[in-house]
Amino acid sequence: MAATSPTLTAERILEATEEVLRRHGPAKATVVDVARALGVSHGSVYRHFRTKTALREAVTKRWLDRTTQVLADVVADGERNPEARVREWFAVLFAAKRRKAGLDPELFATYTVLAGEAGEVVGGHVAELTGQLTEIVRAGVEGGTFTVDDPEIAARALFQATARFHDPGYAKEWEQPGVEGEFEAVVDLLVRGLRAH
Amino acid sequence: MAATSPTLTAERILEATEEVLRRHGPAKATVVDVARALGVSHGSVYRHFRTKTALREAVTKRWLDRTTQVLADVVADGERNPEARVREWFAVLFAAKRRKAGLDPELFATYTVLAGEAGEVVGGHVAELTGQLTEIVRAGVEGGTFTVDDPEIAARALFQATARFHDPGYAKEWEQPGVEGEFEAVVDLLVRGLRAH
Repeated sequence: MAATSPTLTAERILEATEEVLRRHGPAKATVVDVARALGVSHGSVYRHFRTKTALREAVTKRWLDRTTQVLADVVADGERNPEARVREWFAVLFAAKRRKAGLDPELFATYTVLAGEAGEVVGGHVAELTGQLTEIVRAGVEGGTFTVDDPEIAARALFQATARFHDPGYAKEWEQPGVEGEFEAVVDLLVRGLRAH
Repeated sequence: MAATSPTLTAERILEATEEVLRRHGPAKATVVDVARALGVSHGSVYRHFRTKTALREAVTKRWLDRTTQVLADVVADGERNPEARVREWFAVLFAAKRRKAGLDPELFATYTVLAGEAGEVVGGHVAELTGQLTEIVRAGVEGGTFTVDDPEIAARALFQATARFHDPGYAKEWEQPGVEGEFEAVVDLLVRGLRAH
């Protein structure tokens, strides 16, 4: 695992941190493990991340940002109308969470622990996601298909009402039979609520 | 605490069990503790509940049933139209959960542990609650105010979409500022979804 040549960047440290977390779990992983995996001194790691907490927050943010990026593409998809984008946005979010939880349950559990410690990082992530949803809802209101008074409040309600399909606390439910039907039923009801009058 | 006279009923055993759970917590409470609190032999307790698991399930069901009963009164309230009943039903559920969690957080945590062990009891409880909701939604469809295709599917979606306001996993959120506004926004959007067309 010892690195040979390239410059020690924040991204390389975060990659190594994820690998160390995967191997040791969140309770045991240390900055020294990360430095060792990179073949550098722990001082070199601390030059990029001043504390262990800062490093853990940064790797958590990186993990969450991957989903944010995929969802931003749905928001920006001008080919689809706002209703289709709301549905697609939640479908992509649910699929991303299920994939992460299903393919690598241990890493998923590790990040769930880290996210529980990193309140501000998670708060920022949720704010980014509801901001994306607000943008879609606002486009629907402006185009006349949605009729809610306040796109921001509606977006937060949408996000909270779908928690069962993205909150890691429900990960066990995501492999139950019928979960897709449940997801569809919740999203249908919410989209009807956006349209309504 | 030793009982003097009255007949040993299932209800008396369950009362004592709750008291023992409150004092010892779910990990340490035993059938012997319950028998001691009642001043009877543990054999007498086992005549009513054949195993420790059966006793724990029964006390969990009793705890959940208290909420079911209050909600049944909302369902039966012929003075209110279906939309008002849906809103009231969730308001009563949320208030009951917050009260339980707020007044006696340790007992609430204890029952959350017990509920996690008693999958069938909880499943039955959720089925009862969504059954109640189905009844209200069906009344709304029959009266022409709601337009959903399948009241049962809509009721399940309503229940799942409001998890943040009744799932004990979110108990910490219930004391955050703004939670009432969040509750209102989610219920509003869902009720709009029931009406819509």
